[in-house]
Amino acid sequence: MRSPDGVLALAVSAEGGRLGYSVSRGGSVLVGWSALGLRLTDGSVLGGDVEVTGARVTAGDGTWRPLWGADSRVRDHYRELTVRLRQAGGRVFNVIARAYDDGVAFRYQVPEQAGLRSLEIVDEATEFALTGNPTAWWTRRDFDTDENTWQSSPYSAMGASNTPVTFRYEDGTYLSIHEADLDDYAAMTVAPDLGRLRVGLVPTPGRAAAVITRTGRATPWRVLTIAGNAGGLIESHLVENLNPPCAICKGDTSWIKPIKYAGIWWLIQHGQATWKPGPRHGATTERAKEYIDFAAEHGIEGLLVEGWNRGWEGSWADQDFTQATPDFDLPGVVAYGKSKGVEFIVHNETGAGVENYEQQLDAAFALYERLGIHYVKTGYVGNITGHHHYDQRMVNHYRLVLEKAARHRINVDCHECVHATGEARTFPNALAREAVRGQEWDAIGDGNTPEHTLILPFTRMLSGPMDYTPGIMDVLWDPRRDGHRVHTTAAKQLAYYVTYFSGMQMAADLPEHYARSPGLKFIEDVPVTWDETRVLSAGIGDHLVVARRSGADWYVGAMTGDRAQTLRYPLSFLGKGTWTAESYSDAGDDDAGLDVRRSAVTRDDAFTAVLKSGGGQAVRFRRVT
Amino acid sequence: MRSPDGVLALAVSAEGGRLGYSVSRGGSVLVGWSALGLRLTDGSVLGGDVEVTGARVTAGDGTWRPLWGADSRVRDHYRELTVRLRQAGGRVFNVIARAYDDGVAFRYQVPEQAGLRSLEIVDEATEFALTGNPTAWWTRRDFDTDENTWQSSPYSAMGASNTPVTFRYEDGTYLSIHEADLDDYAAMTVAPDLGRLRVGLVPTPGRAAAVITRTGRATPWRVLTIAGNAGGLIESHLVENLNPPCAICKGDTSWIKPIKYAGIWWLIQHGQATWKPGPRHGATTERAKEYIDFAAEHGIEGLLVEGWNRGWEGSWADQDFTQATPDFDLPGVVAYGKSKGVEFIVHNETGAGVENYEQQLDAAFALYERLGIHYVKTGYVGNITGHHHYDQRMVNHYRLVLEKAARHRINVDCHECVHATGEARTFPNALAREAVRGQEWDAIGDGNTPEHTLILPFTRMLSGPMDYTPGIMDVLWDPRRDGHRVHTTAAKQLAYYVTYFSGMQMAADLPEHYARSPGLKFIEDVPVTWDETRVLSAGIGDHLVVARRSGADWYVGAMTGDRAQTLRYPLSFLGKGTWTAESYSDAGDDDAGLDVRRSAVTRDDAFTAVLKSGGGQAVRFRRVT
Repeated sequence: MRSPDGVLALAVSAEGGRLGYSVSRGGSVLVGWSALGLRLTDGSVLGGDVEVTGARVTAGDGTWRPLWGADSRVRDHYRELTVRLRQAGGRVFNVIARAYDDGVAFRYQVPEQAGLRSLEIVDEATEFALTGNPTAWWTRRDFDTDENTWQSSPYSAMGASNTPVTFRYEDGTYLSIHEADLDDYAAMTVAPDLGRLRVGLVPTPGRAAAVITRTGRATPWRVLTIAGNAGGLIESHLVENLNPPCAICKGDTSWIKPIKYAGIWWLIQHGQATWKPGPRHGATTERAKEYIDFAAEHGIEGLLVEGWNRGWEGSWADQDFTQATPDFDLPGVVAYGKSKGVEFIVHNETGAGVENYEQQLDAAFALYERLGIHYVKTGYVGNITGHHHYDQRMVNHYRLVLEKAARHRINVDCHECVHATGEARTFPNALAREAVRGQEWDAIGDGNTPEHTLILPFTRMLSGPMDYTPGIMDVLWDPRRDGHRVHTTAAKQLAYYVTYFSGMQMAADLPEHYARSPGLKFIEDVPVTWDETRVLSAGIGDHLVVARRSGADWYVGAMTGDRAQTLRYPLSFLGKGTWTAESYSDAGDDDAGLDVRRSAVTRDDAFTAVLKSGGGQAVRFRRVT
Repeated sequence: MRSPDGVLALAVSAEGGRLGYSVSRGGSVLVGWSALGLRLTDGSVLGGDVEVTGARVTAGDGTWRPLWGADSRVRDHYRELTVRLRQAGGRVFNVIARAYDDGVAFRYQVPEQAGLRSLEIVDEATEFALTGNPTAWWTRRDFDTDENTWQSSPYSAMGASNTPVTFRYEDGTYLSIHEADLDDYAAMTVAPDLGRLRVGLVPTPGRAAAVITRTGRATPWRVLTIAGNAGGLIESHLVENLNPPCAICKGDTSWIKPIKYAGIWWLIQHGQATWKPGPRHGATTERAKEYIDFAAEHGIEGLLVEGWNRGWEGSWADQDFTQATPDFDLPGVVAYGKSKGVEFIVHNETGAGVENYEQQLDAAFALYERLGIHYVKTGYVGNITGHHHYDQRMVNHYRLVLEKAARHRINVDCHECVHATGEARTFPNALAREAVRGQEWDAIGDGNTPEHTLILPFTRMLSGPMDYTPGIMDVLWDPRRDGHRVHTTAAKQLAYYVTYFSGMQMAADLPEHYARSPGLKFIEDVPVTWDETRVLSAGIGDHLVVARRSGADWYVGAMTGDRAQTLRYPLSFLGKGTWTAESYSDAGDDDAGLDVRRSAVTRDDAFTAVLKSGGGQAVRFRRVT
C-alpha cells in the first residue's frame, strides 16, 4: 500500500507463516522486514504461524478543526489496509495499517471469538528493523519517568528507550517511532535486539500479562512519522490524526481553553517557600492574591497554586483534595481571581497515592466545578504501590481523570504522566502534560543541557503538548547559592513559547523578576494556540527556528544548543506589506539580559538571529500596512 | 531447495532485506519464516539489511565407513545451497544450507574482507519458528552442565534449553534441533522468544563477544533432524555427516577401538571407597589387579581406575597427571592388564583446573603412550575460573585434548564436556563423552526418573556416543542405607547396552555383584560397535525397542519409562532360518532379578517383552541353522 502521494510504501506479508511488514520511501527501504505479532499468556503468538485470508484497502480524507493547537485545520488523509489473518489453530485477527503522506502506522485487532473472550498480552512481537545505521535520538527506557536526559548515538549503539524515538538516515530522511491512541493498554517502549528495535510493553509488576483487555478493540497504533527534513516531523499531525475525533465536544466547549499561567511554584522549587504549611508556606491567601494581581495586570490568564491543600506532611500520598490549609482560603482566592479575570489552577499532587486520589475524584472535581475552577494540574511523584507509572492500570487512570474532568468542565495538565499519544484530539481538555525533563531540573538537579532542549522538539514534543514551564527571565537566580542556574539565555526562554508547543504555557518566573525584565512584554503578547505552524530551519540537538501564526500576527522562536551560531531565515511566510519585527535577542555577556529591538521588514527580507551558546531569539511580527 | 527425495524443502529469503529461512516437509510447513544472522561486537548484524547477490545449488553423495559406530556404512547424500549476500555497508557473507532426506542444516561463512579481519560475534539472530504447538522434550539451559533432568512440555511452555531439543508435531512428524561441527565457537543453546526459539551462544564471562574467530571459516551447522517417526531420529546420521571426514585415519588406526570396561568407580560413588589416598583408598594396586582378573575372565576389555594419581586432596584442581599415589603402581598395573589382555583406562580429573591440565598434557600423554595406555577418561568437575564449560575457550580445549590424544594414540571419554556435535566422524578417538545425567545420579543424587532415561535416546543421544555407564545388576544396593537405588530393573540395565549407543560401554557394577547375576553373560556377549541399527518401536519418554546387528548376531534392547507395558515386535529383521533367542527379562517382584530364557524363533515370529515400570528386556539372537 502506498501513501496518497505515492512516496511511502508499506508492505505487510506472511511469508512462511511469519507476519511482518516493511516500509520504504521513494523506493528506498527505511524499515526492512520486521515482525508483527502479539504474545498471549497461553504461550501462543498471534502472527507466528499465520495465513492471510483476506485484505482490503480503503481511503480516508477529511479535515478537522481542533479547538486549539499548532494549526487551526488539520488534514487527515490516508489509505488504510486491513489484512485478515488466521493463526494456526484457528484464531483470527486483523492488522490494520495506514499510509499517510507523513508516515505510516499499524495496529492489531483481535475480534471476539470462541476461546478468546479476553486478550491477555505478554508482549508484542512488533519490530522496527531500521536499515543502515541512522543517527538515533533516544532516552533511556524507564517505566516510571520520562524525565531523563535525551541523548544521541548511532542506531547500532542505542539502548532501550522510551518513545518517541527519532532517527536520521544517511540520505537525510527522518523517522520517528511512537504510538497513538493508547487506551486500556500498557505504554510502549523500544529495545534494541539483534540490530532491530522491538516493542516492549510496560509490565504490571507481578502479573504475566502486560495487558488484559477485551477482544474486539484495536491495540494502540504503532506510528512511524517520516519526513524529508527534521522540521517535517514537527509539522506532522500524524499522531493526533490516529486518534478518534473529539469525544467531549457536543454542547458547550467554551471551558476548553488553552491558557498562559503563572504559579506559586518557582519559589518553591528554589526552596524559598514550602508546599507544606509552616512559616515559609508558599500557598497563602495573601501571596495568591498578589500573584493574581500580577497576572491580571499582564494578561496572564491563570494562576497555579501548589501546596494549597492538606496532606503535604509525611509521604504526600494521603492528600486531601478538597480541604485547604488553614492559611489558604480556596473559595476566596478563586473568587478573587474570577473578579480579576484570572483562572485558578488547582494542584492535585497525588504523591503516587492513586487509590486515594480516585476515591476523592468525584467529590473534588464537583467542588472545583462548583467554585468555578476549570483547570487542574495533577502529579504522581513517587513509587506507585504495585504499579509502574506507565502500566495498563495507570494508563487507564490518566484516562479516567480526563473523562471525569471533562464531565466537570475541567482541563488537565498531567505531571509524572505517561507520554501523550495524541489523545488531545479526543479529549481536548488534555491541554498539557509533563512527561519531560523540564525546566524544574534547572532548579533542583544538574539542569538541562542545551542539547537536551534541542532534542525535545523532535522527540518528546511529537507526542503532544509539553508543559516545559518556560519563561525564566532571571536565569541566573540562585538564592540557595548552590550553583544552580537555568542553562539558557533569557531570550531562549522567550523562544520556547514559540518552539515548544503546549496548551498550557507557564510564565514560570517570579513576579519580581518579571518586573525588571523587558521580556515580560513578549510573554504578554505571545499566544498559546495557533492558526499555522512552519518550521523554518531545524537540526536535531543543534538548532530550531519555528514560525507560528495567530490571527494576523506571526511569531518566531529561534534557539540553539551548545553552539553559538547565527541563523538567517527568509521572511517569505509573512503576508505582503510592511511588518514591524519586535525581537528579543541574546545580549552581550549577560545571559539574563535581552537585546530588544524593533525593525521594519517585508516578506522579501531575511531575518538574522545571532545566538550565544544556549541562546535564542523570539520575534513578534505585526503587520503595519 | 529440496532434499534428494524431494520430501523436505528449505527456502532461504531476504525479503525486505531481512535474511531468513523456512522448512517444510511434504508441503507442510514445520519451521515458519525464521531469521538468520550474526550480531557482531561493532553493533552490526549480518543478515539484518542484506541483498542476495548470487546463489548456487550443488549436490553430494557418498558413503563412508566409520571405524566404529551404529552402522558400518553411512550414506552422506545431500543437496547444498550457497547463498551469497551483501550487507548494507558492503560486507559480504554466505549462508550455506544443505537438505538431506533426514533433515536440513545451515551455517554462516564470512569471508575475509577489508575491515573484517576477525569475526567477533555477540550472538546469532538464528531462529527456529516452529509451527503449531508441538510437544517439546528439553532440558533447562545451563552453560556448565548437561546433567539436568529432561522434561516434556508443549512448545509454547518450554524454557530455554540445551540441545539437542526434540519436538513432535501433531501430525506425527519429529524434529530435533542441534548443531554439528562445533569448532572454535561457543556452544549453542536455544531460548523461547515470542513463540520461536532463538539461538543463544554460551557467553565468555566478562567478554562481549561469545565468539572471536578468524574470518573465512564457516560457523557450526544448525541442524534440524526430521523424521516421520521417533525412531527415525535415532537412525539418522545427519549430525555426523555434517562433520569433516576422519582427520586421524592416515596410517595405523588399530588403536582406535571401542571398548567395554569395568571400573574402580561404583564403589567410590557409593562412598565405600575414596578417590583420595587413605585407609579406604579405592585405587590400590591390589584392587586394580583383582578387577583386571575379573575383567579378563569375562571378556571385559578395559579397566578404569579413578583416584590413581596425586592431587585428590584439596580442591582437585591441582592434579598431577603423571604421578601415582604411593599405593598404586601405575606401570605395574598397566603391564598386568596387558598380560591379561585388559586395557588400562587412565583417569584425568582436572577438577576444573584447565590450565594445569593443559600444562601437563604433553608430558602425561607421552607417558601414557610409553606405558601402552590407549584410553583416557577426562573430567571437569567444578567451576572453571573465568569460563563456562561450554564457552569458546573450553570448546577449543576439548578439541585440543582430542588432537593431542590422537597424536599419542589415545582414545578419549570426556566427562563434564560440552555436548557432542558429531566430531567422532573427524576424530574417531572421541569414543564417548558424558554430557548426560547418567547413572551416577542413582548413587549420589535423587536418581534418574524412568521418563528421563526414555527421553535421552531421542535428545542427548542424537548428538553422539553417550557414556551413561550402564550395567548395574544389583539395582537395590544401598550400602549407606540412605535410600538410594537405581531406578530401573536389572533387565533394563542390560537393555541399555543396545538402546544407548557409546564407543565405550561400562560394566559399572562391582565384580561381586556380577558374580551372582545371570546378567553378566549378556554383558560378556554384547558388542560395543555395530554393523546395522534399526529402531523397532519408539515413543519418546515412554518406550524404545532397538535392534542392532554385529556380524551375524542381532541384539535387541527394549525398555519402558514409568509405565508397565507389554511390547510385541516382529522379528522380520532376522535372516532366514532358525535362531536362538537368549532373553533377559524383568522378573516378578524383584527389580534386581532376571528371567533368563532361551527360545527358538524365526523371522516370521514376533517377540514379546513384558516390562515392569522402569523395566526392560535384552535379547541376543544367534542363528542356529
